[in-house]
Amino acid sequence: MISSREEVTQLIVATKVQKGIKWSAVAEAIGLSKEWTTAACLGQMTFDKKQAETIGELFDLPDEAVAWLQIAPYKGSLPTAVPTDPLIYRWYEVVNVYGSTIKELIHEEFGDGIMSAIDFSMDIKREACPKGDRVNVVLSGKFLPYKTY
Amino acid sequence: MISSREEVTQLIVATKVQKGIKWSAVAEAIGLSKEWTTAACLGQMTFDKKQAETIGELFDLPDEAVAWLQIAPYKGSLPTAVPTDPLIYRWYEVVNVYGSTIKELIHEEFGDGIMSAIDFSMDIKREACPKGDRVNVVLSGKFLPYKTY
Amino acid sequence: MISSREEVTQLIVATKVQKGIKWSAVAEAIGLSKEWTTAACLGQMTFDKKQAETIGELFDLPDEAVAWLQIAPYKGSLPTAVPTDPLIYRWYEVVNVYGSTIKELIHEEFGDGIMSAIDFSMDIKREACPKGDRVNVVLSGKFLPYKTY
Amino acid sequence: MISSREEVTQLIVATKVQKGIKWSAVAEAIGLSKEWTTAACLGQMTFDKKQAETIGELFDLPDEAVAWLQIAPYKGSLPTAVPTDPLIYRWYEVVNVYGSTIKELIHEEFGDGIMSAIDFSMDIKREACPKGDRVNVVLSGKFLPYKTY
Amino acid sequence: MISSREEVTQLIVATKVQKGIKWSAVAEAIGLSKEWTTAACLGQMTFDKKQAETIGELFDLPDEAVAWLQIAPYKGSLPTAVPTDPLIYRWYEVVNVYGSTIKELIHEEFGDGIMSAIDFSMDIKREACPKGDRVNVVLSGKFLPYKTY
Amino acid sequence: MISSREEVTQLIVATKVQKGIKWSAVAEAIGLSKEWTTAACLGQMTFDKKQAETIGELFDLPDEAVAWLQIAPYKGSLPTAVPTDPLIYRWYEVVNVYGSTIKELIHEEFGDGIMSAIDFSMDIKREACPKGDRVNVVLSGKFLPYKTY
Amino acid sequence: MISSREEVTQLIVATKVQKGIKWSAVAEAIGLSKEWTTAACLGQMTFDKKQAETIGELFDLPDEAVAWLQIAPYKGSLPTAVPTDPLIYRWYEVVNVYGSTIKELIHEEFGDGIMSAIDFSMDIKREACPKGDRVNVVLSGKFLPYKTY
Amino acid sequence: MISSREEVTQLIVATKVQKGIKWSAVAEAIGLSKEWTTAACLGQMTFDKKQAETIGELFDLPDEAVAWLQIAPYKGSLPTAVPTDPLIYRWYEVVNVYGSTIKELIHEEFGDGIMSAIDFSMDIKREACPKGDRVNVVLSGKFLPYKTY
Amino acid sequence: MISSREEVTQLIVATKVQKGIKWSAVAEAIGLSKEWTTAACLGQMTFDKKQAETIGELFDLPDEAVAWLQIAPYKGSLPTAVPTDPLIYRWYEVVNVYGSTIKELIHEEFGDGIMSAIDFSMDIKREACPKGDRVNVVLSGKFLPYKTY
Amino acid sequence: MISSREEVTQLIVATKVQKGIKWSAVAEAIGLSKEWTTAACLGQMTFDKKQAETIGELFDLPDEAVAWLQIAPYKGSLPTAVPTDPLIYRWYEVVNVYGSTIKELIHEEFGDGIMSAIDFSMDIKREACPKGDRVNVVLSGKFLPYKTY
Repeated sequence: MISSREEVTQLIVATKVQKGIKWSAVAEAIGLSKEWTTAACLGQMTFDKKQAETIGELFDLPDEAVAWLQIAPYKGSLPTAVPTDPLIYRWYEVVNVYGSTIKELIHEEFGDGIMSAIDFSMDIKREACPKGDRVNVVLSGKFLPYKTY
Repeated sequence: MISSREEVTQLIVATKVQKGIKWSAVAEAIGLSKEWTTAACLGQMTFDKKQAETIGELFDLPDEAVAWLQIAPYKGSLPTAVPTDPLIYRWYEVVNVYGSTIKELIHEEFGDGIMSAIDFSMDIKREACPKGDRVNVVLSGKFLPYKTY
Repeated sequence: MISSREEVTQLIVATKVQKGIKWSAVAEAIGLSKEWTTAACLGQMTFDKKQAETIGELFDLPDEAVAWLQIAPYKGSLPTAVPTDPLIYRWYEVVNVYGSTIKELIHEEFGDGIMSAIDFSMDIKREACPKGDRVNVVLSGKFLPYKTY
Repeated sequence: MISSREEVTQLIVATKVQKGIKWSAVAEAIGLSKEWTTAACLGQMTFDKKQAETIGELFDLPDEAVAWLQIAPYKGSLPTAVPTDPLIYRWYEVVNVYGSTIKELIHEEFGDGIMSAIDFSMDIKREACPKGDRVNVVLSGKFLPYKTY
Repeated sequence: MISSREEVTQLIVATKVQKGIKWSAVAEAIGLSKEWTTAACLGQMTFDKKQAETIGELFDLPDEAVAWLQIAPYKGSLPTAVPTDPLIYRWYEVVNVYGSTIKELIHEEFGDGIMSAIDFSMDIKREACPKGDRVNVVLSGKFLPYKTY
Repeated sequence: MISSREEVTQLIVATKVQKGIKWSAVAEAIGLSKEWTTAACLGQMTFDKKQAETIGELFDLPDEAVAWLQIAPYKGSLPTAVPTDPLIYRWYEVVNVYGSTIKELIHEEFGDGIMSAIDFSMDIKREACPKGDRVNVVLSGKFLPYKTY
Repeated sequence: MISSREEVTQLIVATKVQKGIKWSAVAEAIGLSKEWTTAACLGQMTFDKKQAETIGELFDLPDEAVAWLQIAPYKGSLPTAVPTDPLIYRWYEVVNVYGSTIKELIHEEFGDGIMSAIDFSMDIKREACPKGDRVNVVLSGKFLPYKTY
Repeated sequence: MISSREEVTQLIVATKVQKGIKWSAVAEAIGLSKEWTTAACLGQMTFDKKQAETIGELFDLPDEAVAWLQIAPYKGSLPTAVPTDPLIYRWYEVVNVYGSTIKELIHEEFGDGIMSAIDFSMDIKREACPKGDRVNVVLSGKFLPYKTY
Repeated sequence: MISSREEVTQLIVATKVQKGIKWSAVAEAIGLSKEWTTAACLGQMTFDKKQAETIGELFDLPDEAVAWLQIAPYKGSLPTAVPTDPLIYRWYEVVNVYGSTIKELIHEEFGDGIMSAIDFSMDIKREACPKGDRVNVVLSGKFLPYKTY
Repeated sequence: MISSREEVTQLIVATKVQKGIKWSAVAEAIGLSKEWTTAACLGQMTFDKKQAETIGELFDLPDEAVAWLQIAPYKGSLPTAVPTDPLIYRWYEVVNVYGSTIKELIHEEFGDGIMSAIDFSMDIKREACPKGDRVNVVLSGKFLPYKTY
């Protein structure tokens, strides 16, 4: 019996490595962005029934796993509060070094409030550059003003 | 005697509040982006001599402070490893929830390596949207492949 | 020179103790709820110009402090990640003991998403009870569904 | 042999996903609120004999598991002191941002003491709202004054 | 201006050392136990007006400090989560080594619930013993059963 | 093969739940207090040969487990430094809120030294009270003065 | 089914101990330095197809493991943030004691920026010395200046 | 009165910034390497009398500060266990990613033991490279075998 | 006004550096071991009246400081749970590497119990050795058996 | 397949309990001290081939385990940074309370440097005493002066 979404994630990841499946192909199969699809496969988002069945077929998952994919998961993909993996750490570093800057500039433009991480999308792509290609990431989050009451 | 860059940052921030200076105006005065300029004013980047003098004039800083602005600072702008401020926390949450996704997709596109946080730029702007304006952020970092030797 | 909002909070708190001012009276003076007003006085929300001036008069604050009240503060009111104060700890305990329950029930009713802590209000009142009066707190937060993209 | 309540919780959760059982239906079956019932199923409360047997039938639990449900569990439902899941984190954030406010206002109304998390109830419901439905939560806890001796 | 209860505690402690005042004498002066009185002087309890004035006289405190003594303080008397002082650590050790035992035995006697730390008293005294005197401590806390709802 | 005392503790606890054994009955069987006996069964104390054999019979333990019961265990019964379980947390809170008070009063009575947690006993009992029964706990620990040399 | 790179690392390490394989021999077999090769075998680098197959033969790995070796791993080889192993701790100590020195001297020579840990190589060798041989380590990392924008 | 070595370090650093002194010039003045000299100026090593006096003259230090420079300091130059500054973090990352590799290779060459961080020297220099200059660091530490007894 | 023992410790340490006083000379002056005396001067032990006065004269302390020296201090001499200073870290490492060994051997010899850190003495001396002098430390602590009750 | 030294340690410990083997007897069998032998059996030291074979015989270990005993292990024997076991904690407390004292006295005698934890030995024995026997521990570590370069 599968008792957590993490077990499903492990099944997906193990099958992906064994079969050499690409995340972009999975995204295409369910008709959504590669960013949302990958996050969902890695246990951070909730699939609807049809999407879950497609994922189940692609990764040869048992029915029980397909049921788990439709349950809102306990989110958080990092094993430690400060990530040790260098690629992910660089993002943590950006938040640490630029955190106060991001805060100042969003407040300067919008006033007090936050940039939503829920009504949010992300787009990661290659940016060709003669000095070495770059990773270009666009983050878009709704501005939510603090409610006064 | 000023014994750390943090004291200079506090002088800048206190003067900014008192005089009502905008970060975008400071950026214009030194001819660089508002993102880099704000980060530098908040103690995360190093000004060159001319920039430092301009900052010194805008914020009425003593000579000693102007000297400190030209010294590479000990970086990191957050008081705790996991930020408590909701605006900054949302960014930490993005790294936590999407961390494994970002890792997978950059590796799928570029192979093993990282997105640089040094050869890096950031652009924060308002994205008009009928359902409520959004914060749009573009991050651009050079891809650095792991060296094999 | 005042170099942080925390110094303003300390001025307000010290004056409150000395003069015996009540939070409910402050709230009435600026025409908002006692919950939002207290949070703002304790450095967690941003006052507009008129509100800040009223606060400045009530607490005999210098002009500089009044300017700081209009700046979006770095939020977070607790000195440690797990609060030691028994009253506040009980709230942390509720989150810890009931956290998974809250998650399950909100998802069962609304699907995947969160209850906003920004488009949010709180109302604390006395609930008379023959076995001993109770604290009754109503929390109201907009449900924000996860965006699919 | 089942050696902890956590194993029973995992059985319940896995069966719930597989069978598509709703917490509200479980609550109805044992005649208590959905909040208490869910917390109890998730290993935070103690069932009496009759309730435990009902739960055992609903979730096809072995006798041993039914015995465990009647034992006061080691409570705490979060894997980390600061929760990573965004829905639960928002509650932690409320405690962090509003913690000092809650403390001030309860003391202003009741004097020194706490709001009990034991003689406590919680009610979570949907609050229809034209701008987007809201999560409405009522917390009710007995006020306990500090004993002087 | 005094901006926190901690400053008042420091004044009390410094004066106590300078004048050689005993906690038992302070307790007698306000007519309460030495345990409650000491805790209150160390910033953990709230004095009423008359008690606060007596304390003010005993320790030559300014009026402002006397006002602070009547405000419910942010409680917690230890600088670190795990105390380093050997005397206090032994108590932490008792909680750590005997924690599960205390839990089991209170539940065996009373069912699920807690021993209150608010409706609580403590009595510390010398217990003469030929092999070396002992510290005898009686803790009395109201049993609070978990509410079912 | 059993490779740690913890496995033995799990066997004992699982059997206790299954058979409905009471700690007080176990204590009676080995002729010691319920406090020491429970702590020992929960892996915090060392049984002698005869006691271990009695425990082995009561809980149907294999010989190997009986051997482990006679080995001084690695002590500490809590999964986290700050306990999450509300009953145990209240004890941690007592140490935190009253820690400095306990220190002051023991030193006032005995001078510098500690209250032993080794030459120590604990007695937990019900204290009838018209306003609600109380948990009464007596702790007795030998005072150990710091050696001067 | 193998569900993580760590399982592959354990297979490699267990086989290495059983067969008495040397890291230098592995390095020779794939034609790269012993430093990169060892790091890769320990789950910190990504092998290409041919290298992975060679590793697979040397360590009798199943095909699935060979597939995992070609996937960029989640990096970080230490079980705790501050390493307990004395050999590795000495390196942490060097970073702690000399950290500010390294920062000052690299900035004095190169200006603001970092020494890359990605475009990086390391060479560990024995340095004969009459007073006792020494470990000589050469680290070479590209200097990356902070981008101004 | 100067009550810690850290105050002396702050005096040195503040004067360095104000006067624009270079670490290499300081090193030359006392006739030692720039690495040892900088570490000593930053409060990590102990100067002898003559060196301390030279430092005192270069940085206009009071006699008391010169006395402190000759006292073995409490070492450790980082404000947090995991450094936030990107330059220093890269070194922490090297220890984390390559830690197990360094351990394996030193043991393969030397057997069980450590590389000393006390009988240790470090040399940081620029390594010209057409693709961008590199930081070249040589670490040399005596191998110390574990004593068998 | 002196409000903590730490301020007294700082006065002692600052005067020691300025005047070049040796701990062994202080020990001789009060007629106790250099280990106890140093610990007491560093704020870890309590002086009696006569000792405190001698210390006061040696270090030119004000009367208030002499009073503080006679108060049992809050003990613990390290700024972090894991010490960063290499000399002190080696002792932490001994406890970490040999901790389980020490436990096993004391239990093998004495049964369950502890080695007292209160009825304890320490003697640090030079041990001449042709291969390089050694630090020889003798620790002597009373064995305290766990009480059975 | 055995994939870590810890599994070998568990085999040794389980067998020791089952067979009632004494560490002193093991030490005698390999002709070394009980301290080094116990540490090695508990996974902290490396056996040579002959010693490993003797250990293998005493504890009925498979060949693979005997191979593991000859590999330098990842050291550190405690499950948490601050040990919870009272016997081991007392040693941590000694380091905490006496840490600054040990540092001062070693520096006063030897100058700047450390006491080695590698070229180190330990001897634990019973010290008869009329007031209760004592644990007497002699630690001997080579003094290593900081290298100047």
